[in-house]
Amino acid sequence: MANFKLLKELVQPAKTKIVLLVMDGMGGLPRASDDQTELEAANTPNLDKLAAEGCLGQHHPVDIGITGGSGPGHLGLFGYDPLEYEIGRGVLEAVGIGFPVTDQDVCARGNFCTLDAQGIITDRRAGRIPTEVCVKLVDKINAAGINNPEPGVEIFVKPVQDYRFVVVMRGGGLSANLDETDPQRTGVPPLPVVARDAASERTARLFQDWITKATAVIRNEHPANGMTLRGFAGDPKLPKMKDVYGVRAAVIAVYPMYRGVASLVGMNRIEHHAHSVQEEFEAAGQVWNDYDFFFIHVKYTDSRGEDGNFDAKMKVIEEVDAAMPTLMALKPDVLVVTGDHSTPSQLKSHSWHPVPLLLWAPATARRDRSVIFGEREASTGGLGTFHAADIITLALAHAQRLAKYGA
Amino acid sequence: MANFKLLKELVQPAKTKIVLLVMDGMGGLPRASDDQTELEAANTPNLDKLAAEGCLGQHHPVDIGITGGSGPGHLGLFGYDPLEYEIGRGVLEAVGIGFPVTDQDVCARGNFCTLDAQGIITDRRAGRIPTEVCVKLVDKINAAGINNPEPGVEIFVKPVQDYRFVVVMRGGGLSANLDETDPQRTGVPPLPVVARDAASERTARLFQDWITKATAVIRNEHPANGMTLRGFAGDPKLPKMKDVYGVRAAVIAVYPMYRGVASLVGMNRIEHHAHSVQEEFEAAGQVWNDYDFFFIHVKYTDSRGEDGNFDAKMKVIEEVDAAMPTLMALKPDVLVVTGDHSTPSQLKSHSWHPVPLLLWAPATARRDRSVIFGEREASTGGLGTFHAADIITLALAHAQRLAKYGA
Repeated sequence: MANFKLLKELVQPAKTKIVLLVMDGMGGLPRASDDQTELEAANTPNLDKLAAEGCLGQHHPVDIGITGGSGPGHLGLFGYDPLEYEIGRGVLEAVGIGFPVTDQDVCARGNFCTLDAQGIITDRRAGRIPTEVCVKLVDKINAAGINNPEPGVEIFVKPVQDYRFVVVMRGGGLSANLDETDPQRTGVPPLPVVARDAASERTARLFQDWITKATAVIRNEHPANGMTLRGFAGDPKLPKMKDVYGVRAAVIAVYPMYRGVASLVGMNRIEHHAHSVQEEFEAAGQVWNDYDFFFIHVKYTDSRGEDGNFDAKMKVIEEVDAAMPTLMALKPDVLVVTGDHSTPSQLKSHSWHPVPLLLWAPATARRDRSVIFGEREASTGGLGTFHAADIITLALAHAQRLAKYGA
Repeated sequence: MANFKLLKELVQPAKTKIVLLVMDGMGGLPRASDDQTELEAANTPNLDKLAAEGCLGQHHPVDIGITGGSGPGHLGLFGYDPLEYEIGRGVLEAVGIGFPVTDQDVCARGNFCTLDAQGIITDRRAGRIPTEVCVKLVDKINAAGINNPEPGVEIFVKPVQDYRFVVVMRGGGLSANLDETDPQRTGVPPLPVVARDAASERTARLFQDWITKATAVIRNEHPANGMTLRGFAGDPKLPKMKDVYGVRAAVIAVYPMYRGVASLVGMNRIEHHAHSVQEEFEAAGQVWNDYDFFFIHVKYTDSRGEDGNFDAKMKVIEEVDAAMPTLMALKPDVLVVTGDHSTPSQLKSHSWHPVPLLLWAPATARRDRSVIFGEREASTGGLGTFHAADIITLALAHAQRLAKYGA
């Protein structure tokens, strides 16, 4: 992983600009028809040109053979060993909707569910109610006067999407070491909030009392008349990129969660109305002079991979390629194009396969033999195979932002 | 890094001989005209033949993305993690001129400078006085009777080159945790010697008193009538190669500093009058029967890289290649050819790019697909990409000097 102590010592001021372009779940597996992966099969003249001018390699997002989630995958890309630093699901959800998590908070992801008359779960997602219904239920709970359980403790409830919401409990001395209440199946009631250690007992009691009262508030609703809470978590207290890498960093992402993870390492969220990749690149251009490091996130490679739709994932990659001239017109000094993990459409899920990486830096990159951007080309690229958490050091080095170590 | 504990356990006696041939700053970047690096463009029939017979790989001297100085670069090649073991600049300078540093010593690198009537520095390098003048100034200081400041404390002053000299203070209870006196700019007086902790206060006072007296001795000289001291450092107490690797090791180097670093890990300095690579190889032949491990250092690849002279660096590599028959006539069992870091002539400085490595061992090397010695060939070589500090273990293994681990 990035050696924060060493980097702090070596970081030097520079005017160079780094772009980290992440196609979520970019890595794939070859399809039978022509033995090409999504990235290999895609028509990507712009990325291929950059591959020829720069150099390739491949990385393990978490560790060799380990499949990472989105949180660990992105922590790795930002230089944080995902096995050392962990972002709980509750915090991911909270920051993902722009909630400013503090070190006094315990966050949980909530699911509205359907309970029968005996309190047994009959649908864990309450018929996947639309977001508008979720908003109304949350409003009702927030209006019920149950969010100040004791002096100095405050509870914030926010809708997310469909049946999902977030609960944040704020107060001194809270602890997130709690078991989830989702039994992960129907036919049983929600589980109680159980403290895993003595220090978390008060927090467990406060959450349990609140769940009981909030469930009473929505008892007569349909189909969402119950709830489960998952992923209790506090602020992971991650070192900030400005402090460890000396860069002013910005995130441009369509999905809230990625903006959220990036904000936890100190990136500024860029407000934009981008939906397409082209618009995301244009949003980067709007703030180009204000930052040194741009993390640009493309979501739909992963979504289409999870759908099992090879062609659709390929087309998202082609959309990225087609928009590249807009990004390159900004003249970054260092461009890294990669993914946070592989999502082969054949597996319809994240996977452990190493992720190809393209590093382009006209002043400093050692050109290798690569002429296209693809998994096989990257596996024999000049950068070799490494851990995701080393990418940031490589990027800083190629941006000439690191001094020499030792005489 | 080399696992000293494990290696000590596994090392077994053998008659095999290992040569570590280091072309300083060997790694480069491709030039525009033909997309070849210095090593790739060089005409190297002998090294190419060895590449075809042996196998290639590439290494990170310090860590991925980190640019190493000469000290860290060589510590890595010798199997010592440069992030764990550090050699201070003062010690580097002292051992570099053959001064036998002990664990009672605090060493500093000295620069003669020019002071005006008010004691303000007007030239940090005293007009780059020639070495003869430096020698005379040092003689004058040494004759002034100021080098025994108190009983049990002795000061040694030695000329190095041009305006540079070395000061070594020897005595019980000294400590090197001192701030440098070079303000790194003109227009201000030299800084005082400041102790960074209580344990170093006495040493700071002794150095400051000596500087005051020594400066008085040369007050009327011109242009060198003042001095600054930098890089205060004590013996880094490195484990010795004989103890951890079981080899009798020798160093053949033209530049003093490399003999010095090698001596800190227990290598014997071979006295020779070699200037050319050919003569260095001949010097190795003179002592071939006395040692198991030969570190042969070629300086000018780095020098020409720092000059930004692609062709001249290429020619140094060709000089090495032309001399290879002399080295190979000694019939080493294992030959490693690599660099301590990259010095691309395009960057005119050390860089972080991985360094190609050639491992030739007729009895034990697994031949790969490599047919020439170059950066791109090495990046896909059979040895993969690894840390410099693993090279020594590879060399010992191929020399059949390591027993099996476990039953």
